[in-house]
Amino acid sequence: MTQKIPTRLYLAEDELPKVWYNLRAVMKNKPDPILHPGTLQPVTAADLAPVFCKGCIDQELDDSTLLIPIPEGLQEFYRAYRPAPLIRAYFLEKTLGTPAEIYYKFEGNNTSGSHKLNSAAAQAYYAKEEGLTSLTTETGAGQWGSAMAMACAFYGIDLTVFMVKVSSEQKPYRKALIETYGANLIPSPSDTTESGRKILADNPNTGGSLGCAISEAIERAVKTDKCRYVLGSVLNHVLLHQSIIGQEAKAALDKYGIKPDIIIGCAGGGSNLGGLIAPFMGEKIKGASNTRFIAAEPVSCPSFTRGRYAYDFGDTAQTTPLIRMFTLGNGFIPSANHAGGLRYHGMNSVLSKLYKDGCLEARSYEQTTVFDAAIQFAKIEGILPAPESSHAIRAVIDEALECKRTGEKKTILFGLTGTGYFDMTAYMSYNAKTMSDSIPTDEDLTRGFATIPAIPQNR
Amino acid sequence: MTQKIPTRLYLAEDELPKVWYNLRAVMKNKPDPILHPGTLQPVTAADLAPVFCKGCIDQELDDSTLLIPIPEGLQEFYRAYRPAPLIRAYFLEKTLGTPAEIYYKFEGNNTSGSHKLNSAAAQAYYAKEEGLTSLTTETGAGQWGSAMAMACAFYGIDLTVFMVKVSSEQKPYRKALIETYGANLIPSPSDTTESGRKILADNPNTGGSLGCAISEAIERAVKTDKCRYVLGSVLNHVLLHQSIIGQEAKAALDKYGIKPDIIIGCAGGGSNLGGLIAPFMGEKIKGASNTRFIAAEPVSCPSFTRGRYAYDFGDTAQTTPLIRMFTLGNGFIPSANHAGGLRYHGMNSVLSKLYKDGCLEARSYEQTTVFDAAIQFAKIEGILPAPESSHAIRAVIDEALECKRTGEKKTILFGLTGTGYFDMTAYMSYNAKTMSDSIPTDEDLTRGFATIPAIPQNR
Repeated sequence: MTQKIPTRLYLAEDELPKVWYNLRAVMKNKPDPILHPGTLQPVTAADLAPVFCKGCIDQELDDSTLLIPIPEGLQEFYRAYRPAPLIRAYFLEKTLGTPAEIYYKFEGNNTSGSHKLNSAAAQAYYAKEEGLTSLTTETGAGQWGSAMAMACAFYGIDLTVFMVKVSSEQKPYRKALIETYGANLIPSPSDTTESGRKILADNPNTGGSLGCAISEAIERAVKTDKCRYVLGSVLNHVLLHQSIIGQEAKAALDKYGIKPDIIIGCAGGGSNLGGLIAPFMGEKIKGASNTRFIAAEPVSCPSFTRGRYAYDFGDTAQTTPLIRMFTLGNGFIPSANHAGGLRYHGMNSVLSKLYKDGCLEARSYEQTTVFDAAIQFAKIEGILPAPESSHAIRAVIDEALECKRTGEKKTILFGLTGTGYFDMTAYMSYNAKTMSDSIPTDEDLTRGFATIPAIPQNR
Repeated sequence: MTQKIPTRLYLAEDELPKVWYNLRAVMKNKPDPILHPGTLQPVTAADLAPVFCKGCIDQELDDSTLLIPIPEGLQEFYRAYRPAPLIRAYFLEKTLGTPAEIYYKFEGNNTSGSHKLNSAAAQAYYAKEEGLTSLTTETGAGQWGSAMAMACAFYGIDLTVFMVKVSSEQKPYRKALIETYGANLIPSPSDTTESGRKILADNPNTGGSLGCAISEAIERAVKTDKCRYVLGSVLNHVLLHQSIIGQEAKAALDKYGIKPDIIIGCAGGGSNLGGLIAPFMGEKIKGASNTRFIAAEPVSCPSFTRGRYAYDFGDTAQTTPLIRMFTLGNGFIPSANHAGGLRYHGMNSVLSKLYKDGCLEARSYEQTTVFDAAIQFAKIEGILPAPESSHAIRAVIDEALECKRTGEKKTILFGLTGTGYFDMTAYMSYNAKTMSDSIPTDEDLTRGFATIPAIPQNR
C-alpha cells in the first residue's frame, strides 16, 4: 500500500454500479413496518398505489432483495453526470496537520447542485416506464424541485412543483432554475387545490410550509389522470436510489484497497446518509468491517440526538402513513436555519433503527461552527459547500483534529452532498456576522413530542 | 474504430498535461508585437515590470518556445479541480437526429464556474513564487473575480477586486462569493484611488465600467509594495494558461483516435477559444490536419465579424499598451447583453492574426437564438450553460443540423466554458420573453472606430 493515491478516484464507465444496495435485506433487526394511519396495519402496495409510481412502491416495501438492478434506461441518464468524483482531501489534511486520510464523495457536480438528482432520475424513469404523463412534488429549499425538473425534462414528463411560498420569494433564482427546465412552479399555498384554498381561507397571509406544499402536491396527483406524486427523502425507495453514492464510493475505494474507519454524512430526512453508508454498513452487519458511522445534524433540529423513537406522521398535516423513526414530533417547528434540507422533524426508518440499535452515532452542530468549517473547506479544497453538507465537514474536521491529538492515522470518508451556489444569502449572513444559532428548549421539544400520535405502538 | 466511446472521456491523473502549448511558436506569420503607446516601439519586459508578475511577462513576450512547463506547485492546484470532463453529447446528437459526433470540454465544474480559474491559478502561483503579498484586479460579470479570489485563497495572497459598481449591485451573490473567499471587494469607481475619485468628481452617479475598474486596479497595484495587477483575458500569457483546455481535450481524444473536423468556441477577449484550439491549430499549421475553427460572438459586440484589424488600446481609458487586433474601437459601447464576458471591444492578438490570415472563421448570433440553444442543451445534456458558452452551443447546433441536411458524419468539439448558476436573471428575462437583441448600426460602429488611435501603423 505504498501506491500513490490520486486526488480524484474516478471509476471508468464500465465500472459504474449496475445495482442498488438494499440495506434492509442484510439487517437482522429490520425496521418496523410502515402503518396505515386508519387501520394501524402495515401498508400494502394497494394502499400506496394512488399516490406513488408502482416501481417505487415495490422498492419501498421490499426488505429482502439485497441487490436491485438499476434499469438500463436509467443508467443512461446516470452516465450523463456520473460517476460523481471521489476526492482525496490532500489540502485539507495538510492544512489541519492531521495524520488522518480524508476522502469525500462529491455529489454537487450537476446543475441541480446535489445528490437529489439520483432519486429524481429514478422516479421520473419509472413514471415514464409506467406510462404516466405527469408528476407532482413539493420543494422547500429548492434542491429537490430543481432535480425533479431536470429529470422530467430529460424523460419528457410534465412536472408541477408546489414551492413553499416564502422560499419562492426568497430564492427567485432557484425558482427560475426550476422554470427554466420547464416545470410548472406554483407558490404554495395556492388557490389551485382544495387544501391550498382551505389554508388560504384560514390564513390569507401565510408564507406556506413544507407540510402544506406536500398536501397540495398529493391532492393534485391523486385527482389527475396518469399522474403520481414523488418525494425526495425519508422514504426507503429514495434511500435505495441514493445507494448509488455508496456503491460508487466503495467500488472506487476497493480499487485502491482502502477501507474507511469512519464514514460521516449530514442527515435531514436521511437520503444522503443512508445512500452513502449502505454497502459499508452491510459489510459491518456481516462482520466484515469495524467502520464507525456518524450522522451530523443541526442543533436546531436534533431528530437523532434529542428525538424520540416512535411511530409518527411524515408530515405536519398528518396525512401520510405512520413511520417508526426518531422524531421531534410532526408539529415540531425548527427555528430558522439556513440548512433548509435538514429542517425535518423525523428521519428515515432504516437509519432510525440502526441508530436505535447502536450501529450509527449522531452529533449535532450549531450553524456558525458549521459555516466556520464550510469556509475553511472552500478556501483549501476549492468547492463552496451547501450548508447541509457543511454539517458533515464540521464533524470531519473535528474527527481529523482528534486524530492529530492521538496520532491515529484513521481513514475518513464523508459525503459532500452539494454546492452552496444557490445559498449565498446564508454565506452573506455569515460574512456579515449576523448569523445566529438556536437551540430548542426542553419546552420546545415537549410541545413537539405532544404531536406524536398516541397509538398503542407508541406506548 | 468500432470501439464504444464512453460518455465522459477522463484522463487519469498521470496523463494530465505537464506543459502549456504556446501557439505563437508554430505560427509562420507571428502576431504583430505589442507597442508602447508613447514610443510606438515594442514593449519590453522592463516596461511591463511595474504592473505584471515577472513569470507572466516572460510568457507574454515569448513567441518562440512551443511547450512551456506547468510548474509542479501549480499542477498541484490543477489536480484539485482538473481534469475537466470531455463529454460526448450523445443526448444532443440523438435529439437533433444528426450524424455528427459532438464532444464538449466542460470547464464549469469548479466553484468559480468557468475556465477563468486556469489562468487565475497560474497568476496567483507566480505572484506567490515571486514573493509578492498582494494582487489587484477588476471584474465585471464576476467570473474572473471569483476565480482570482479562489486562487488567492489557496496560495495565501491578499486580493483586491474592483468590481464594476452596477454589477456589484445587480449580482449580490457573485459579490458574496468573492468575499466568502476572502477578497477585498470594492465597487468601482471608488474614492480609494485617484482615478476613481476623478471619475466620481466628474460623474457622481456613474455605475462604473470595466475600463474604470481596470484603471483603479492598476493604480492600486503600482502604488502598493509587493503588489501587482492581474488580467483575465486578451493577453497572450492568459491564452497560454488556458491552453490546458486544449491540451487535455487533445490528449483525451487521442486516446480514442478521434480527430475533430470542426472546433467551436465562444469569443470575448479570446482566452477560452485560444486555449481550446491551441494544440489543434498547431497541428493544422504544421499541415497535419484540416480542422476548421469557428469563433462564436454576439451580434451586439461583433469584434471579429464587423471589427477592423488595427492597433488599439486594450481599455477605454487608453492606458494600456497598443495591441494589433480586431477591434470595434476602445470607445465602442456594446448594448446591454447578458453575456457580460463577451462584451469586449477587442480580441487577443494571436486569434486576430489567425482570423486575418484565414485560419479561423467567425459567426455572430443574436442572444434570443443563443438562449434557445442554451435551454435545449440544458434539458437534454443536464448542464445549465453560461450565456457566454451558449454562443458556442448555438453554432454547434447549427453545424450539426447542417450535417443532418448533408448526411456528413463530422466530428465537432466545442468549449463549454462555464455554468449559468450566477446568471439566472438572464434566464428569467428569456423565460419572461422580455429578452431583446441589439445589433449595432453602421453609425454605432463608425463612432467606435473613431476611437482607434491614428498612429502610423494603422494607416
